[in-house]
Amino acid sequence: MHYNVAVIGTGPAGLSAAITLKIRNKEILLLGNAGLSDKISKAHLIRNYPGLPDVSGEELAKNLKNHIDSLGIQITEELVSTVYAMGEMFSIQTKSNHIYEAKSVILATGISFEKPYPGEEEFLGRGVSYCATCDALLYRDKTVAIIGTSPKEEAEAEFMAEIAKKVYYIPLYPEEVSFDKDIVVRKEKPVSISGSIKVDKLIFENDELSVDGVFILRDSVFPQSLVPGLTVDGNHISVNRNMETNLKGCFACGDCTGTPYQYIKAAGEGNVAALSAVSYLNATK
Amino acid sequence: MHYNVAVIGTGPAGLSAAITLKIRNKEILLLGNAGLSDKISKAHLIRNYPGLPDVSGEELAKNLKNHIDSLGIQITEELVSTVYAMGEMFSIQTKSNHIYEAKSVILATGISFEKPYPGEEEFLGRGVSYCATCDALLYRDKTVAIIGTSPKEEAEAEFMAEIAKKVYYIPLYPEEVSFDKDIVVRKEKPVSISGSIKVDKLIFENDELSVDGVFILRDSVFPQSLVPGLTVDGNHISVNRNMETNLKGCFACGDCTGTPYQYIKAAGEGNVAALSAVSYLNATK
Repeated sequence: MHYNVAVIGTGPAGLSAAITLKIRNKEILLLGNAGLSDKISKAHLIRNYPGLPDVSGEELAKNLKNHIDSLGIQITEELVSTVYAMGEMFSIQTKSNHIYEAKSVILATGISFEKPYPGEEEFLGRGVSYCATCDALLYRDKTVAIIGTSPKEEAEAEFMAEIAKKVYYIPLYPEEVSFDKDIVVRKEKPVSISGSIKVDKLIFENDELSVDGVFILRDSVFPQSLVPGLTVDGNHISVNRNMETNLKGCFACGDCTGTPYQYIKAAGEGNVAALSAVSYLNATK
Repeated sequence: MHYNVAVIGTGPAGLSAAITLKIRNKEILLLGNAGLSDKISKAHLIRNYPGLPDVSGEELAKNLKNHIDSLGIQITEELVSTVYAMGEMFSIQTKSNHIYEAKSVILATGISFEKPYPGEEEFLGRGVSYCATCDALLYRDKTVAIIGTSPKEEAEAEFMAEIAKKVYYIPLYPEEVSFDKDIVVRKEKPVSISGSIKVDKLIFENDELSVDGVFILRDSVFPQSLVPGLTVDGNHISVNRNMETNLKGCFACGDCTGTPYQYIKAAGEGNVAALSAVSYLNATK
């Protein structure tokens, strides 16, 4: 199925974009979390979402969910690994290895307060990967390190161990880790990634591992890694007042485009991005 | 009283700005209509204000009113005639001849679909005026034409007739007009305003009046007339993504800054303008 617009993210920006697009009768693919954004539902009290005085995060999330349900908008629960601009079409690859196609894309991915490791961006595609399922086969009989930010990444390490010669697993969370398979668990904080043409090493404060590849498994992906060719400013996607990015047909809205990180600002920008996408679709029909 | 911020306009942009400023403990002056914006309450059904599915304009207006009431935000019901940037302070002059001072200003004046008459902007301050109360004394024993867009402007014409030698009144509305005083009513549509150094004539399609001044009495004022020195693009105020205008300390949000004319976009921009004003106040403390 070819969608008119793929909306990536289910915070207030992505939901607002989806609502306006649906009302404008566009075929949309809304990718995200059926529980909506954690950042909303965990908010204690939101005092400045006009029209909903003193609303709790949980209530706002419920209201937004009711709104999309009333319009028949479905959420597709998949994590996006990469969005490729293919000229007249975008190809959206997910971590569960599905590929979707859409004429335009709205990025509403929120903001991650993590920073990339030194070397991470430099070696992306040359030994650094964000998706074990996608890239495991490149590491047959090789040595890889997997940095996991939550216990759900352990399954990725087990899958990797079926293919690679040696797997190191570096959990960045406090829970105990144990594997059936032969995986070396290292409870240390990585400092950087180094190499020459390709990755050679994952470096800790007092130690290092010689590896052929480093998989960094986070829920969020940095926007410049998510969409190759996207112009960013620090960790924000560069947009104009129409929420257009530098890539034709690709729009962005909400926290991923910059401060202030506010629900109502994100919802307003989602609306603008949606209507810019509608104009784009009309112009390219 | 010196206010931290004057917010001009009580549509979703102005109210959103006022809500965020109040939460940030700023002293605000909110100028507008206690009945909020006509454009909201007259809307039949709003389907894309996220969190309030299928809300009528009347309901949205009621929700917004409850929200500002719950925060103790008052609306000062006055029409602003001019905002002067005086360096560290803004002076806000109203049509009822009050002057307020504020360290910063947020323009949320909405959009008027009227166009200025040819010659109107050229002769503003040189025979063209928007405020009879303010400028009547300049026309003692002279001849003036008053263009009124609603019956409430008739009182202005009567006041003018006490001062000027001759007053023409041009009603742009269908209601019957009758005056106690010696005022000539002309039911024709003005076409343009002409003159050399100052205004000489108000021109109709098949006729013209020799006048020393033309008063144009509308509810809305064009932004470039409202704030001398403001940079505009057509009839939109030019702003960047922080909702900053070209004048330091002066911000704008909502329909007056450009399309799309949408409630949620306006509310989002009001929030951004408010937080930019907060940053400005902090930096100039």
